[in-house]
Amino acid sequence: MRIETRLQELGLVLPEPLKLPHGLRLPFHWVRVRGNRAYISGHGPLLPDGTTAGPFGKVGAEVTAEQAYVSARLTALSILSSLKRELGDLDHVTAWLRVFGMVNSAPGFTNQPNVINGFSDLIIDLYGPAAGQHARSAIGVAELPLGLPVEIEAEVEIKA
Amino acid sequence: MRIETRLQELGLVLPEPLKLPHGLRLPFHWVRVRGNRAYISGHGPLLPDGTTAGPFGKVGAEVTAEQAYVSARLTALSILSSLKRELGDLDHVTAWLRVFGMVNSAPGFTNQPNVINGFSDLIIDLYGPAAGQHARSAIGVAELPLGLPVEIEAEVEIKA
Amino acid sequence: MRIETRLQELGLVLPEPLKLPHGLRLPFHWVRVRGNRAYISGHGPLLPDGTTAGPFGKVGAEVTAEQAYVSARLTALSILSSLKRELGDLDHVTAWLRVFGMVNSAPGFTNQPNVINGFSDLIIDLYGPAAGQHARSAIGVAELPLGLPVEIEAEVEIKA
Repeated sequence: MRIETRLQELGLVLPEPLKLPHGLRLPFHWVRVRGNRAYISGHGPLLPDGTTAGPFGKVGAEVTAEQAYVSARLTALSILSSLKRELGDLDHVTAWLRVFGMVNSAPGFTNQPNVINGFSDLIIDLYGPAAGQHARSAIGVAELPLGLPVEIEAEVEIKA
Repeated sequence: MRIETRLQELGLVLPEPLKLPHGLRLPFHWVRVRGNRAYISGHGPLLPDGTTAGPFGKVGAEVTAEQAYVSARLTALSILSSLKRELGDLDHVTAWLRVFGMVNSAPGFTNQPNVINGFSDLIIDLYGPAAGQHARSAIGVAELPLGLPVEIEAEVEIKA
Repeated sequence: MRIETRLQELGLVLPEPLKLPHGLRLPFHWVRVRGNRAYISGHGPLLPDGTTAGPFGKVGAEVTAEQAYVSARLTALSILSSLKRELGDLDHVTAWLRVFGMVNSAPGFTNQPNVINGFSDLIIDLYGPAAGQHARSAIGVAELPLGLPVEIEAEVEIKA
């Protein structure tokens, strides 16, 4: 329970599972576990009650880079919430491996890395530099589901 | 041959390999097998004869979400066709792990999940909820090769 | 040192690590090694001194497809440079597995595959068809960090 203790120290709350908006159907799993790997579906930022967290729209236009940094940090909490439900204990994640960060980008916005740092900073803070380190890409996509400003998928190593 | 029997029951046909359009050169493999993993290249929808299947263009403009659902379903058949050529038997896929769905999206189109459901629904129908389940992302990209409406890449576990 | 000998025969130089432009902070690792896998972060093209290599902007507008092919080839050298620093010897890569190629695409540019061939051609030339082969996707993204024309991430098998 080391990671959850650290979350409490930081005053951070894991959100409820996504409350599906009307008309959206998601037949896949948020986390797919196999052997010592967990594959994590693309997540977006959530409020504690499981509704999607704004602001919505394109970073560099409706959403500032600073707001999107917070969205990426909230996305980390969404993913941790899914991992906790799947694994029981967040300490079972033994190594973060790959993080793929997608930023809903307005034309000309090219600071995707500093946005996705909102995710990386929190994960490295929580898990430390050995387990928390990861390979990462940050790119600007044309559109995201529900107008989310950020969507992140990942792959982690877990206790088999 | 359980999966192929199920395909026949559904009246579904695996397409021929992609007939390369003039001027396109693809030096990579459609499926890369190593140990108990198969990495699946980005595939698009094909007609049974291996030519690319329309409609082409951006979902939300030239292509409707309903048409793109069918494109995603055809993309599943393209991938199954590549897997059959590489593995010999589709039953050798023991678990779907990761599905990355890219939708060629017109400005303002944000219903990528329901498009990629055309892929997920068929895979879960064919393989069942245990083997067929997968982690998934669905995003809107700016452009896709040949003006395809959908491109999907994946990773699966196979009998080593 | 077989791969480095081949690089020298081809007259190719591995660039210095990325010299971070002002205002950019990258808290992750370029290569994340775990067991027999190396996960490779999204890289862009570099000049030998580690500064980002132009031309910058969208392929199909400010950058031609032919120029972007060279950018993808330079991106392969950036990745090999990171792998050498992490693994010590490029021969320790025993199999290329997955390559994800992102092209900063102007509206209507759909020849992403021939751009990313600049990466695939060099890797297959260096490693040969058995180890160098890979699954691949090539897509058009809306924006990339720093206005890079190409960004590529990858996963490889290594000697554990």
